[in-house]
Amino acid sequence: MGKWSSMAIKNRLSLNQMTVANLTLPQAVDSCARHGVLNIGLWRHRIEEVGTFAAAQLIKDSGINVSSVCRGGMFPDPSANGREARINDNFRAIDQAAALEADSLVLVVGADPSVPLPDARQMVVDGLARIVPYAQTAGVRLALEPLHPMYAGDRSVLNTIDHALALATPYDPTALGIILDTFHIWWDPALEAAIARCTTRVAGFHVCDWLVPLPDVLMGRGLMGEGVIEIPRIRQMVDDTGYEGPIEVEIFNQSLWNMPSDEVMQKVIASFAAYV
Amino acid sequence: MGKWSSMAIKNRLSLNQMTVANLTLPQAVDSCARHGVLNIGLWRHRIEEVGTFAAAQLIKDSGINVSSVCRGGMFPDPSANGREARINDNFRAIDQAAALEADSLVLVVGADPSVPLPDARQMVVDGLARIVPYAQTAGVRLALEPLHPMYAGDRSVLNTIDHALALATPYDPTALGIILDTFHIWWDPALEAAIARCTTRVAGFHVCDWLVPLPDVLMGRGLMGEGVIEIPRIRQMVDDTGYEGPIEVEIFNQSLWNMPSDEVMQKVIASFAAYV
Repeated sequence: MGKWSSMAIKNRLSLNQMTVANLTLPQAVDSCARHGVLNIGLWRHRIEEVGTFAAAQLIKDSGINVSSVCRGGMFPDPSANGREARINDNFRAIDQAAALEADSLVLVVGADPSVPLPDARQMVVDGLARIVPYAQTAGVRLALEPLHPMYAGDRSVLNTIDHALALATPYDPTALGIILDTFHIWWDPALEAAIARCTTRVAGFHVCDWLVPLPDVLMGRGLMGEGVIEIPRIRQMVDDTGYEGPIEVEIFNQSLWNMPSDEVMQKVIASFAAYV
Repeated sequence: MGKWSSMAIKNRLSLNQMTVANLTLPQAVDSCARHGVLNIGLWRHRIEEVGTFAAAQLIKDSGINVSSVCRGGMFPDPSANGREARINDNFRAIDQAAALEADSLVLVVGADPSVPLPDARQMVVDGLARIVPYAQTAGVRLALEPLHPMYAGDRSVLNTIDHALALATPYDPTALGIILDTFHIWWDPALEAAIARCTTRVAGFHVCDWLVPLPDVLMGRGLMGEGVIEIPRIRQMVDDTGYEGPIEVEIFNQSLWNMPSDEVMQKVIASFAAYV
């Protein structure tokens, strides 16, 4: 414990709303304020319950920084109409991120079991070409998040940092960055070199731990320190890129969701101090 | 159906014993003989029930080829004594593969939650240096099998083809090959180039499918055609390396294990004919 000063924790820690999935946006913001957390990662379904402009006002009044909005992307779809609907949904997500003055809009690129993998990956290339210019006009930084390869069949056909870099290369780093999440990237045998190549593309750093054995493909994520990921080693790699922004704690875990949220906040702050 | 002639199926199809996990080795061999399957992948716990030399005699009498023995490897261990025990177990596995005249001994390199990932990967390098010379003397080809990254915490710290190639480079391809398994490699964004780099290192090709959603991290594998992997596309890449050996059907799936084995054999042969 105590590697971080309490001021450093306050400056860097961001609560991703999915860690306290049962809280509404106003409840999550209130929880951050009471626990001294200065950054929050918001999810769109919770923004939309409140309404974007009410949410933006509430955030502004709170003085809390929106480190990210989750999420755009989801480009692959077997039909052209379906793909067009996804593009329009991305435009809406960009508008929301702009209203909330979020540091970035996270892109989970999507996957569709009925679309062959190479085709799906091309749909991501094509989708980015549609939305990046719109985001630049809106002043929103997009950020590609590679997801763990176990999600390649149904959530994201973007599964490595190097693939994210290849997708991002045509665009300015201020327009299209990359989100690094310990859960998704820790296994990569060339991790250090891949993170180093991200340089100014790093748009966010998410932390949680990999439990052994993995309890569930989606819901089995652990608090930092509960699993096998050497988070400080990865944080050092991210620090070395020059990234100094918020570090989001994003944990999909049913037992956390069943806990009183104040207890979750205490656990998040303590495990961040000790294991990040 | 019918992409393969029945003769071609007989020549290439290998039944990995884990697909009919409830059968003893004599039962699995009998099942192959009755269904016209000419190759089998054996597991050591089933070999050891019979005794290595009795198993070798039984295999010889059957005329069936042993495409692989599963498995050696499992190098990482926090203690030096533990690691030495693993090396000795590999020597025993090599002796068994030699007695059975197997095409290769599959190496699943292992992982240990108490050993940091970079250290575990070094233990694999060190372990290979110990066992490859022994295997060469015994006339056994070793074969590294990269496992899906979701197993990096508890089963294998070798998770990509490129990493397998880096580990194998110091050794002759006839001494240390690589097993390509569709379930473990299909997600790789640079798959085609990685397989092409394997050239003469390809020591085996395993097929099964990735179900969506994934029912279970270990037991959720599907029959070919039941999931999202484009197996013929990957088979073409493997064919292009010049590999002409057995193609093993290895499926960990509890519902298959609950089925009468003759029914499983029929399903394996039919899905191989239609979807490989």
